Amino acid sequence: MTSSTTPEQTLAEHARAAMYAKDAASVGLGILIPVIAPGYALATMTIRPDMLNGFGLCHGGFIITLADTAFAFACNSNNQMTLATGLDAEFLKPVELGDTLSAEARVQARASRLGVCDVAVRNQQGVLVTLVRGRSYTVKGKQVVNL
Amino acid sequence: MTSSTTPEQTLAEHARAAMYAKDAASVGLGILIPVIAPGYALATMTIRPDMLNGFGLCHGGFIITLADTAFAFACNSNNQMTLATGLDAEFLKPVELGDTLSAEARVQARASRLGVCDVAVRNQQGVLVTLVRGRSYTVKGKQVVNL
Amino acid sequence: MTSSTTPEQTLAEHARAAMYAKDAASVGLGILIPVIAPGYALATMTIRPDMLNGFGLCHGGFIITLADTAFAFACNSNNQMTLATGLDAEFLKPVELGDTLSAEARVQARASRLGVCDVAVRNQQGVLVTLVRGRSYTVKGKQVVNL
Amino acid sequence: MTSSTTPEQTLAEHARAAMYAKDAASVGLGILIPVIAPGYALATMTIRPDMLNGFGLCHGGFIITLADTAFAFACNSNNQMTLATGLDAEFLKPVELGDTLSAEARVQARASRLGVCDVAVRNQQGVLVTLVRGRSYTVKGKQVVNL
Repeated sequence: MTSSTTPEQTLAEHARAAMYAKDAASVGLGILIPVIAPGYALATMTIRPDMLNGFGLCHGGFIITLADTAFAFACNSNNQMTLATGLDAEFLKPVELGDTLSAEARVQARASRLGVCDVAVRNQQGVLVTLVRGRSYTVKGKQVVNL
Repeated sequence: MTSSTTPEQTLAEHARAAMYAKDAASVGLGILIPVIAPGYALATMTIRPDMLNGFGLCHGGFIITLADTAFAFACNSNNQMTLATGLDAEFLKPVELGDTLSAEARVQARASRLGVCDVAVRNQQGVLVTLVRGRSYTVKGKQVVNL
Repeated sequence: MTSSTTPEQTLAEHARAAMYAKDAASVGLGILIPVIAPGYALATMTIRPDMLNGFGLCHGGFIITLADTAFAFACNSNNQMTLATGLDAEFLKPVELGDTLSAEARVQARASRLGVCDVAVRNQQGVLVTLVRGRSYTVKGKQVVNL
Repeated sequence: MTSSTTPEQTLAEHARAAMYAKDAASVGLGILIPVIAPGYALATMTIRPDMLNGFGLCHGGFIITLADTAFAFACNSNNQMTLATGLDAEFLKPVELGDTLSAEARVQARASRLGVCDVAVRNQQGVLVTLVRGRSYTVKGKQVVNL
């Protein structure tokens, strides 16, 4: 995961920069993408008061949004435009105000234009709080950024 | 789905009011819950600029957040505190800036303390854009609102 | 669901006949497909002793196999070769020796070459025992049966 | 994964023996459980002619049945009776007649009585063909085998 200067790593960094610059949703939630690599992304987010649900816990939708962002950056790291077609999420532990979550996304498999990407979301103590399995579809002949 | 005054309907309305009053996440996204009934909830949300991802489309996470809210209100409509344990989502059509989404959630089955709730999300033209299947767990002996 | 003689219905019946004739797996499990229609299939199966798991209940894999068969016949009912890419299953009630299960599959949505098909599995008392949501991919330019 | 003689390993081996002796479904499909350990199981199966679907490929239901068996043995390896409540499956590559599949199941998380178990299914060349994520529920106070 080091910033080695392979062409694949350079491509991943260019795709991240291009996507993040336009990703109002992720920016608005305070999501950062501190690490990107071919088939991999790490995204972080700190739980704010406006992310709490009626039980005073982080609304599951925001946890999934973080995971979905990590998933999108990992899938598009080869600069081939790839969209989410669906996902499965398992909520394992409650997430609370002020928690800082880290979502690690790894592409597990690609078969033709379909792919599967696993995301593990942990809190600041390293406890696994949510697992997401994302499904993707690569659009033919479209790049994230024209290089 | 009319506001008939059965005890179950009254309970559902009380649970909705209590949950919504504290649900900063849903309120902050502009989500409304115009209809509630036993085992059923309708939630609506209009897509704002801060919900768009790097491709200029609504970030899938926000669509799921809307669906998850509808799911939570439907599951808790009997005033027994019920939490989401996971969900499966299928993104069928892109959602764009200004679209108004309606998420209809219906409890499909309960088996002991576990439940399944289906959510269909449509846009203002009535086109199905996302399907979510939520899984829930009812906490023993806890009410949403003490009546 | 009647055997009306629209061209779509005729096509669905031809596709069913062609698929079933070669489907050793479904035939071997005693699965029947008594009803087929455009985007719809009904499949039935009776639980045999060789379908029971270590707890004396029907192995969940066989319930899914029945649902997957119904899903496949519903998706291919337009005679465009369509494969399963995945599925989500929820086991709601135990299934026992001698139970006769009915799996009703309905195509819910198609978006380009991807599709979603819901299957509800009920026992002989009409009790919902399992829900399956199937995901499909239509192979370009391939028919189930050449007509 | 060695057969060390920790009490947990001994328990896992006893649970496997007790479950397998009564698991007519798995035995009938030729499924073997060559490795068991706390929170882990390896199950194998060779594709027979009676497992092929109408397209001449292994019916997805049988791949899931293999994965579901591995999942069940991994979840019950601590001798606390645990049932599957559902699963998500992703079919990545076709499986053919004569292929020998290996399904490795690992418990990923437990939260109260709910758990998540991931299963990776590979063919004889080590190619990943299917991913399954199983969800489980531990029955209170019931053991697989009384020791």
